[in-house]
Amino acid sequence: MQADGIVRLSKIQVNPDYLDEYMKYAVEVGTISLETEPGVLTMYAVADKDNPCNITILETYASQEAYKSHISSDHFQKYKQGTLHMVDSLLLDDVTPINPDNRIINFINPSAASEPSHD
Amino acid sequence: MQADGIVRLSKIQVNPDYLDEYMKYAVEVGTISLETEPGVLTMYAVADKDNPCNITILETYASQEAYKSHISSDHFQKYKQGTLHMVDSLLLDDVTPINPDNRIINFINPSAASEPSHD
Repeated sequence: MQADGIVRLSKIQVNPDYLDEYMKYAVEVGTISLETEPGVLTMYAVADKDNPCNITILETYASQEAYKSHISSDHFQKYKQGTLHMVDSLLLDDVTPINPDNRIINFINPSAASEPSHD
Repeated sequence: MQADGIVRLSKIQVNPDYLDEYMKYAVEVGTISLETEPGVLTMYAVADKDNPCNITILETYASQEAYKSHISSDHFQKYKQGTLHMVDSLLLDDVTPINPDNRIINFINPSAASEPSHD
Protein backbone atom coordinates (compact mmCIF):
# COMPACT_ATOMS: atom_id res chain seq x y z
CA MET A 1 0.00 0.00 0.00
CA GLN A 2 1.25 3.48 -0.86
CA ALA A 3 1.38 6.38 1.59
CA ASP A 4 -1.94 7.68 0.26
CA GLY A 5 -3.67 4.30 0.47
CA ILE A 6 -7.05 3.89 2.13
CA VAL A 7 -8.22 1.36 4.72
CA ARG A 8 -11.92 1.65 5.39
CA LEU A 9 -14.80 -0.02 7.15
CA SER A 10 -17.90 0.68 5.08
CA LYS A 11 -20.98 0.17 7.21
CA ILE A 12 -24.17 -0.40 5.26
CA GLN A 13 -27.68 -0.88 6.50
CA VAL A 14 -29.73 -2.65 3.85
CA ASN A 15 -33.50 -2.37 3.58
CA PRO A 16 -34.76 -5.82 4.63
CA ASP A 17 -37.11 -5.92 1.62
CA TYR A 18 -34.10 -5.96 -0.69
CA LEU A 19 -31.57 -8.02 1.25
CA ASP A 20 -31.36 -11.00 -1.11
CA GLU A 21 -31.10 -8.78 -4.15
CA TYR A 22 -28.52 -6.53 -2.47
CA MET A 23 -26.35 -9.54 -1.65
CA LYS A 24 -26.09 -10.50 -5.31
CA TYR A 25 -24.86 -7.04 -6.23
CA ALA A 26 -22.42 -6.94 -3.32
CA VAL A 27 -20.94 -10.37 -4.03
CA GLU A 28 -20.57 -9.49 -7.71
CA VAL A 29 -18.82 -6.16 -7.18
CA GLY A 30 -16.48 -7.67 -4.59
CA THR A 31 -15.55 -10.57 -6.85
CA ILE A 32 -14.92 -8.48 -9.96
CA SER A 33 -13.00 -5.83 -8.00
CA LEU A 34 -10.65 -8.35 -6.36
CA GLU A 35 -10.17 -10.29 -9.59
CA THR A 36 -9.58 -7.38 -11.96
CA GLU A 37 -8.28 -4.42 -9.93
CA PRO A 38 -4.73 -4.81 -8.60
CA GLY A 39 -5.24 -1.63 -6.55
CA VAL A 40 -8.17 -3.13 -4.63
CA LEU A 41 -6.27 -4.94 -1.90
CA THR A 42 -9.21 -6.03 0.22
CA MET A 43 -12.96 -6.10 -0.22
CA TYR A 44 -14.19 -8.42 2.50
CA ALA A 45 -17.88 -8.12 3.34
CA VAL A 46 -19.53 -9.61 6.40
CA ALA A 47 -23.09 -9.52 7.71
CA ASP A 48 -24.04 -9.46 11.38
CA LYS A 49 -25.38 -12.83 12.47
CA ASP A 50 -27.98 -11.08 14.62
CA ASN A 51 -29.07 -8.75 11.83
CA PRO A 52 -27.93 -9.70 8.31
CA CYS A 53 -29.05 -6.28 7.06
CA ASN A 54 -26.01 -4.80 8.82
CA ILE A 55 -23.12 -5.22 6.43
CA THR A 56 -19.51 -4.24 7.10
CA ILE A 57 -16.93 -4.24 4.32
CA LEU A 58 -13.20 -4.08 4.98
CA GLU A 59 -11.96 -2.14 1.96
CA THR A 60 -8.31 -1.43 1.23
CA TYR A 61 -7.11 0.61 -1.72
CA ALA A 62 -3.44 0.79 -2.63
CA SER A 63 -3.62 4.53 -3.35
CA GLN A 64 -6.01 7.40 -4.00
CA GLU A 65 -5.55 6.68 -7.70
CA ALA A 66 -6.64 3.06 -7.19
CA TYR A 67 -9.70 4.27 -5.29
CA LYS A 68 -10.66 6.74 -8.01
CA SER A 69 -10.23 4.04 -10.63
CA HIS A 70 -12.45 1.70 -8.57
CA ILE A 71 -15.34 4.10 -8.11
CA SER A 72 -15.35 4.99 -11.78
CA SER A 73 -15.33 1.35 -12.92
CA ASP A 74 -18.35 -0.15 -14.68
CA HIS A 75 -18.76 -2.85 -12.05
CA PHE A 76 -18.76 -0.37 -9.17
CA GLN A 77 -21.19 1.94 -10.94
CA LYS A 78 -23.49 -1.02 -11.66
CA TYR A 79 -23.44 -1.87 -7.94
CA LYS A 80 -23.82 1.74 -6.78
CA GLN A 81 -26.65 2.72 -9.08
CA GLY A 82 -28.33 -0.69 -8.85
CA THR A 83 -28.48 -0.68 -5.04
CA LEU A 84 -29.17 3.01 -4.25
CA HIS A 85 -32.79 2.27 -3.38
CA MET A 86 -31.84 -0.76 -1.28
CA VAL A 87 -29.49 1.04 1.13
CA ASP A 88 -31.00 2.71 4.20
CA SER A 89 -27.70 4.11 5.44
CA LEU A 90 -24.03 4.14 4.52
CA LEU A 91 -21.11 5.14 6.71
CA LEU A 92 -17.56 5.28 5.35
CA ASP A 93 -15.33 4.88 8.37
CA ASP A 94 -11.68 5.41 7.45
CA VAL A 95 -9.30 3.59 9.75
CA THR A 96 -5.63 2.96 10.44
CA PRO A 97 -4.27 -0.53 11.12
CA ILE A 98 -2.75 -0.45 14.60
CA ASN A 99 0.22 -2.61 13.53
CA PRO A 100 1.79 -1.75 10.16
CA ASP A 101 3.42 -5.20 10.08
CA ASN A 102 0.03 -6.95 10.21
CA ARG A 103 -0.68 -7.93 6.61
CA ILE A 104 -3.78 -9.17 4.86
CA ILE A 105 -4.05 -10.84 1.47
CA ASN A 106 -7.60 -11.03 0.16
CA PHE A 107 -8.68 -12.93 -2.95
CA ILE A 108 -11.47 -14.96 -4.47
CA ASN A 109 -10.93 -18.69 -4.17
CA PRO A 110 -9.45 -19.56 -7.58
CA SER A 111 -11.41 -22.82 -7.76
CA ALA A 112 -14.64 -20.80 -7.63
CA ALA A 113 -14.71 -20.09 -11.36
CA SER A 114 -16.50 -16.91 -12.39
CA GLU A 115 -17.45 -18.56 -15.67
CA PRO A 116 -19.74 -21.58 -15.88
CA SER A 117 -17.82 -24.81 -15.55
CA HIS A 118 -17.57 -27.13 -18.55
CA ASP A 119 -16.76 -30.23 -16.52
CA MET B 1 -12.17 -22.83 8.55
CA GLN B 2 -14.29 -25.62 9.99
CA ALA B 3 -18.09 -25.57 10.15
CA ASP B 4 -17.94 -24.33 13.75
CA GLY B 5 -15.43 -21.58 13.00
CA ILE B 6 -15.97 -18.01 14.15
CA VAL B 7 -15.73 -14.73 12.24
CA ARG B 8 -16.12 -11.74 14.52
CA LEU B 9 -15.82 -7.98 14.62
CA SER B 10 -14.74 -7.08 18.13
CA LYS B 11 -15.55 -3.43 18.81
CA ILE B 12 -13.60 -1.88 21.64
CA GLN B 13 -13.79 1.58 23.07
CA VAL B 14 -10.56 2.40 24.88
CA ASN B 15 -10.33 4.94 27.67
CA PRO B 16 -8.36 7.84 26.14
CA ASP B 17 -6.11 8.02 29.20
CA TYR B 18 -4.76 4.57 28.38
CA LEU B 19 -4.73 4.56 24.59
CA ASP B 20 -0.95 4.35 24.08
CA GLU B 21 -0.60 1.63 26.68
CA TYR B 22 -3.58 -0.30 25.31
CA MET B 23 -2.07 -0.26 21.82
CA LYS B 24 1.09 -2.02 23.04
CA TYR B 25 -0.96 -4.82 24.56
CA ALA B 26 -3.16 -5.12 21.46
CA VAL B 27 -0.25 -5.22 19.02
CA GLU B 28 1.51 -7.82 21.17
CA VAL B 29 -1.43 -10.18 21.50
CA GLY B 30 -2.22 -9.93 17.79
CA THR B 31 1.36 -10.66 16.80
CA ILE B 32 1.83 -13.63 19.11
CA SER B 33 -1.58 -15.08 18.23
CA LEU B 34 -0.97 -14.94 14.47
CA GLU B 35 2.58 -16.23 14.80
CA THR B 36 1.95 -19.11 17.19
CA GLU B 37 -1.70 -20.19 16.85
CA PRO B 38 -2.56 -21.95 13.58
CA GLY B 39 -6.25 -21.77 14.55
CA VAL B 40 -6.18 -17.96 14.70
CA LEU B 41 -6.79 -17.18 11.03
CA THR B 42 -7.17 -13.42 11.31
CA MET B 43 -6.54 -10.84 13.99
CA TYR B 44 -6.54 -7.54 12.16
CA ALA B 45 -7.05 -4.48 14.33
CA VAL B 46 -7.86 -1.01 13.05
CA ALA B 47 -8.52 2.30 14.78
CA ASP B 48 -10.94 4.94 13.53
CA LYS B 49 -9.07 7.87 12.04
CA ASP B 50 -11.61 10.24 13.59
CA ASN B 51 -11.39 8.64 17.01
CA PRO B 52 -8.44 6.30 17.58
CA CYS B 53 -10.06 5.08 20.81
CA ASN B 54 -12.56 3.16 18.67
CA ILE B 55 -10.87 -0.10 17.76
CA THR B 56 -12.31 -2.81 15.53
CA ILE B 57 -10.66 -6.22 15.26
CA LEU B 58 -11.49 -8.71 12.52
CA GLU B 59 -11.02 -12.01 14.30
CA THR B 60 -11.34 -15.40 12.65
CA TYR B 61 -10.97 -18.70 14.48
CA ALA B 62 -10.78 -21.98 12.60
CA SER B 63 -13.05 -23.74 15.10
CA GLN B 64 -14.58 -23.48 18.55
CA GLU B 65 -11.63 -25.51 19.79
CA ALA B 66 -9.19 -22.95 18.31
CA TYR B 67 -11.13 -20.16 20.01
CA LYS B 68 -11.08 -21.90 23.39
CA SER B 69 -7.36 -22.52 23.02
CA HIS B 70 -6.83 -18.84 22.18
CA ILE B 71 -8.71 -17.40 25.13
CA SER B 72 -6.92 -19.71 27.54
CA SER B 73 -3.46 -18.87 26.18
CA ASP B 74 -0.95 -16.99 28.31
CA HIS B 75 -0.66 -14.16 25.77
CA PHE B 76 -4.43 -13.62 25.58
CA GLN B 77 -4.77 -13.71 29.36
CA LYS B 78 -1.94 -11.18 29.68
CA TYR B 79 -3.79 -8.88 27.27
CA LYS B 80 -7.20 -9.45 28.82
CA GLN B 81 -6.19 -8.96 32.44
CA GLY B 82 -3.69 -6.22 31.63
CA THR B 83 -6.22 -4.08 29.73
CA LEU B 84 -9.43 -4.63 31.74
CA HIS B 85 -9.20 -1.17 33.30
CA MET B 86 -8.41 0.47 29.94
CA VAL B 87 -11.52 -0.72 28.11
CA ASP B 88 -14.69 1.36 28.40
CA SER B 89 -16.80 -0.98 26.29
CA LEU B 90 -16.48 -4.22 24.35
CA LEU B 91 -18.90 -5.62 21.79
CA LEU B 92 -18.36 -9.04 20.23
CA ASP B 93 -20.25 -8.94 16.96
CA ASP B 94 -20.30 -12.35 15.29
CA VAL B 95 -20.65 -12.14 11.54
CA THR B 96 -20.92 -14.26 8.40
CA PRO B 97 -18.87 -13.50 5.26
CA ILE B 98 -21.38 -12.80 2.48
CA ASN B 99 -19.28 -14.69 -0.09
CA PRO B 100 -17.80 -18.01 1.09
CA ASP B 101 -15.30 -17.88 -1.78
CA ASN B 102 -13.85 -14.58 -0.53
CA ARG B 103 -10.66 -15.58 1.28
CA ILE B 104 -8.34 -13.72 3.60
CA ILE B 105 -4.83 -14.64 4.66
CA ASN B 106 -3.54 -12.64 7.60
CA PHE B 107 0.01 -12.73 8.93
CA ILE B 108 2.74 -10.65 10.49
CA ASN B 109 5.28 -9.39 7.96
CA PRO B 110 8.07 -11.97 8.31
CA SER B 111 10.75 -9.31 7.95
CA ALA B 112 9.43 -7.65 11.12
CA ALA B 113 11.32 -9.92 13.49
CA SER B 114 9.75 -10.38 16.91
CA GLU B 115 13.23 -10.78 18.38
CA PRO B 116 15.77 -7.95 18.47
CA SER B 117 17.81 -7.87 15.29
CA HIS B 118 21.50 -8.76 15.42
CA ASP B 119 22.35 -7.01 12.15
